Amino acid sequence: MNGCAFVDGVFVPPEDAKISIFDWGFLHSDATYDVAHVWQGRFFRLEDHLDRFEASCRALRLDPGLSRERMREVMHECVRRAGLRDAYVELLCTRGRPAPGSRDPRTCTNRFMAFAIPFVWIADPEKQRRGVDLVVGTPARIPASSVDPRVKNYHWLDFVMGLFEAYERGGETVVLTDGAGHVTEGPGFNVFAVFGRQVVTPSAGVLEGITRRTLIELAQREGLEVQLRELGVDELRRADEVFLSSTGGGAIAVHALDGVAIQGRRAGDIGPVTARLQAAYWSLHQDERYSAAVQYGR
Amino acid sequence: MNGCAFVDGVFVPPEDAKISIFDWGFLHSDATYDVAHVWQGRFFRLEDHLDRFEASCRALRLDPGLSRERMREVMHECVRRAGLRDAYVELLCTRGRPAPGSRDPRTCTNRFMAFAIPFVWIADPEKQRRGVDLVVGTPARIPASSVDPRVKNYHWLDFVMGLFEAYERGGETVVLTDGAGHVTEGPGFNVFAVFGRQVVTPSAGVLEGITRRTLIELAQREGLEVQLRELGVDELRRADEVFLSSTGGGAIAVHALDGVAIQGRRAGDIGPVTARLQAAYWSLHQDERYSAAVQYGR
Repeated sequence: MNGCAFVDGVFVPPEDAKISIFDWGFLHSDATYDVAHVWQGRFFRLEDHLDRFEASCRALRLDPGLSRERMREVMHECVRRAGLRDAYVELLCTRGRPAPGSRDPRTCTNRFMAFAIPFVWIADPEKQRRGVDLVVGTPARIPASSVDPRVKNYHWLDFVMGLFEAYERGGETVVLTDGAGHVTEGPGFNVFAVFGRQVVTPSAGVLEGITRRTLIELAQREGLEVQLRELGVDELRRADEVFLSSTGGGAIAVHALDGVAIQGRRAGDIGPVTARLQAAYWSLHQDERYSAAVQYGR
Repeated sequence: MNGCAFVDGVFVPPEDAKISIFDWGFLHSDATYDVAHVWQGRFFRLEDHLDRFEASCRALRLDPGLSRERMREVMHECVRRAGLRDAYVELLCTRGRPAPGSRDPRTCTNRFMAFAIPFVWIADPEKQRRGVDLVVGTPARIPASSVDPRVKNYHWLDFVMGLFEAYERGGETVVLTDGAGHVTEGPGFNVFAVFGRQVVTPSAGVLEGITRRTLIELAQREGLEVQLRELGVDELRRADEVFLSSTGGGAIAVHALDGVAIQGRRAGDIGPVTARLQAAYWSLHQDERYSAAVQYGR
């Protein structure tokens, strides 16, 4: 696998990027992370990802042990060393290992890691052209009362079980509800519904995605009315357009929900709001207010 | 660290037991596990742990790729190689890595691992003599509608946040509720309350612990009435005795709940039912119907 990782203070190839099975980051999924991307040689909204990562670490009482400047430098260096023009760049912090025989997380030394690998799409470009077939999965998304979804975390068994269900039902990915009929999020993405000039995305029980934020800002700039509120699954079925937002692809059109085409559209017939936001999203990537060049020459 | 691990088909020292950071077992906590223990040279209820592990793998659509006979052999071999008379023995299965660029778990090759390390107590013997100070934590336990608690999993951020809260409030460990006032479980243990001749433990939202089952059987043998039902936190506060059950120590007395001594007892004054069940539990460990000798001589 092409790429570069940063583990225990050293840059290593991805195949050498390993973690002790005794690290609570594995044994208790006691970790946080964030994913930024590089597109055509530029990081997109990296400072926003670093802000969120630092906030997630504080919320979980994790100390990555590196300054923000050093974390930024490590991310750039991973991309530079891997020579990737388009990259998926993750930084993460695990609890580490407690003292022998102890079950006290306060005895752990937290560990920071990072890696850059080739850009990973939520849905590959061919699926993006057609629109994704989305399934409303049976598991409820882990509620905020248990684990704060705004703190990016690896608790994904609900999503993984939902993915298997989606495949069985002929879908390509899954969105989970809160168990009370409201849309939450899917594995790696937020969800948006368009009703005329209104664009709605769930306000609670979800990660506050950086791509979500970007699309909210772009929609407002386009003069659309953005509503952050509860979004019923029944409403979603009646939407004029549905799209997903993710670092792994921007605004991705949904073609069908549970096998039923949104507004009866043909595959490949992307709704106008989705198409406009998707174009606006990618055009931001060369804007210096939102992006920072990787210095490959060094 | 003393011990022995089995990774990628090879027995290695614990410090060499590592997992790729790209394994979904880490990146999505997409894994299951089980923990058996060896006491005075004998595995306790190993077949029950293997039954549960196999059921957990099936539920998560994981294939450890080893026969039950081979898994049993690996666990024995880890203990034998480590030369441990008292051991904590874990077996686990992770999703593995998807095909490059894919987010489809069906493309993963699942991976089996195991390790034996020195026995880890839920509460050390000194704390067990005094009784544990338990705190009712603020996070709700991840509900069964999101992740089935009967499938042993590493989704522990609710517990870890609860542990930090417990320490701050002067406690030693934490029990979580279902968010509606009912007791669920704690990090690595089930909870029991004693009311006269009645012994109550939560029926839902919890792991069906092997130690829990053992203590239920022992309580019934003692002529106590065992009730598996909803257990309110308010009830727990009024109980005659409260104890925890765990592979990491059997029946462990709780001295205080949120800083208030159960029935005003002094630390070290273990209730009679708890004391009797704890003694009965340990005496089972030499019973051949429940235990199997490790052949260290080989």
